[in-house]
Amino acid sequence: MRAVVALGGNALSPPGAAGTVAEMRAALRKTAEPLADLVGRGVELVISHGNGPQVGRILLQQEYAADHVPPMPMDVCGAESQGQIGYLLVQALDSALRRRGLDTRALCLVTQVVVDGRDPAFRRPTKPVGPSYPRPEAQRIAHETGYVFTIQPDKLWRRVVPSPKPVRFVEEVPLLQVIEAGHVVVAAGGGGVPVVEHRRELRGVEAVVDKDLTAARLATLVRADLLLILTTVDKVYAGFGTSQQRALDRLTEAEATELLAAGEFPEGSMGPKIEACLDFVRASGARAVVTSLGRVVDAVFADAGTTIGGDGAVDG
Amino acid sequence: MRAVVALGGNALSPPGAAGTVAEMRAALRKTAEPLADLVGRGVELVISHGNGPQVGRILLQQEYAADHVPPMPMDVCGAESQGQIGYLLVQALDSALRRRGLDTRALCLVTQVVVDGRDPAFRRPTKPVGPSYPRPEAQRIAHETGYVFTIQPDKLWRRVVPSPKPVRFVEEVPLLQVIEAGHVVVAAGGGGVPVVEHRRELRGVEAVVDKDLTAARLATLVRADLLLILTTVDKVYAGFGTSQQRALDRLTEAEATELLAAGEFPEGSMGPKIEACLDFVRASGARAVVTSLGRVVDAVFADAGTTIGGDGAVDG
Repeated sequence: MRAVVALGGNALSPPGAAGTVAEMRAALRKTAEPLADLVGRGVELVISHGNGPQVGRILLQQEYAADHVPPMPMDVCGAESQGQIGYLLVQALDSALRRRGLDTRALCLVTQVVVDGRDPAFRRPTKPVGPSYPRPEAQRIAHETGYVFTIQPDKLWRRVVPSPKPVRFVEEVPLLQVIEAGHVVVAAGGGGVPVVEHRRELRGVEAVVDKDLTAARLATLVRADLLLILTTVDKVYAGFGTSQQRALDRLTEAEATELLAAGEFPEGSMGPKIEACLDFVRASGARAVVTSLGRVVDAVFADAGTTIGGDGAVDG
Repeated sequence: MRAVVALGGNALSPPGAAGTVAEMRAALRKTAEPLADLVGRGVELVISHGNGPQVGRILLQQEYAADHVPPMPMDVCGAESQGQIGYLLVQALDSALRRRGLDTRALCLVTQVVVDGRDPAFRRPTKPVGPSYPRPEAQRIAHETGYVFTIQPDKLWRRVVPSPKPVRFVEEVPLLQVIEAGHVVVAAGGGGVPVVEHRRELRGVEAVVDKDLTAARLATLVRADLLLILTTVDKVYAGFGTSQQRALDRLTEAEATELLAAGEFPEGSMGPKIEACLDFVRASGARAVVTSLGRVVDAVFADAGTTIGGDGAVDG
């Protein structure tokens, strides 16, 4: 069985963490345990991950040093975060695999994702990146840089960048080769480094591709039997936070599509995860599961989490 | 023919550059041209590169932001620089390959290099990293962090870290697979992220492995026919800067060993390059060439640069 796992921010460092390497190592050590268990049970794993807090810290470092060191654009920062997180994740996975006496090893491939330069997302930046600012400072930065800011629920302002859809991976061929060779592959971190094709050349763009949508594309590419989207909750809820709240065990493709269209899943949190599951389910006919790290082994081998699509769901 | 190329700092950004992404892209665009020519002429390329100025800038950014963002240790910064440089280099190579109508594509593998925890280098840090400081500031930082500083030729002080020998690559198996599959592979940037094995786990260390020695190990691993060490000069000189200065065309392994032992090649510049060539020549029986980027195609197909070892040199 082959599975693509999308790790959320909490899998990389605990919520509210200061962002020290010790915190990241501790979080990754915990994250690696169930993933290594899956490998031990014969699952071929491809791992993708978010990078929000990590690339946020890189952007903040750039800003504090901006009078002395020229800041790099978002695409380059994204590539730096792939190196940072990929390295630490590979090391944590290798250790967990070794502790189990497994010979499989992990590796990280720096991955570019091609997006469409005409994607409507480029006309409407929505994805917050980097630090929050009070209004005057946000205005000053916007004036100096041309960045677009929007107000956040906490009344502070954050830069927003476009979040175009992933189309394909530049490193598609070698990616498939290392997966076929049986390695645990960490790829397309932070949704992949977004690039557009321009006159037959690739060019990085200041954008962030949703990591779950990217994981869905990755799962389709590698013909995964399963897409696992890991988050902080064990299951997806309908009517979350209302008196009608109910945990969902299984959704057919049609049911998930309907609930998503009805606005049951909040934009910016569960919505894109369900959308990613549907992308994969529609393209592959296989199943996707949204669950927590703690339930991931049971999600693969039993019935933990919320399953979308796949044979069982279609029949049921 | 298979060749490992070690790119120096100038190949990544021009000397004295501020370190903007535009400077890096321009330098890499020039660097990619002769490398793509080699691919066009049938050479299987593995590319390694330095990261001194780039990781220096990452360290500086960390320092300026240290009150707000916890700095990462050297190994993590090295991995970040692999992501940064690898991404930009792969993009430049891809464009150059596409312009030639070649189907070969480049990819970057985040690479860890295992070093020996008992390497004597750990008792004598020698490799300068990061920014230069006047003495009082260096003393303050040394006091706060435990870092070791030494005075540089310019009378300023820089942190020094150990520079242990590369032993092997953690990603050895997948590295060989992607090379065998015919991709242009960027690997072990900045000498590789140095790790030690401790109780069967890998652990990053605050050290920098010499990028040319790492390239030599890489060349041995992939059974390269040729190790190309690119630098600012077309050829190696004996008695450099003296009235006896002479360009060297070819050196047998014995001649190079003798000149190195006699102190003909300055430590910290040409010395480690010759040592790296000798490491590879001794392990493989193949040849190594030290030359400039501008002469690299002629170094492979004609007789540019300084050749060390190989059949010709052994016979001559």
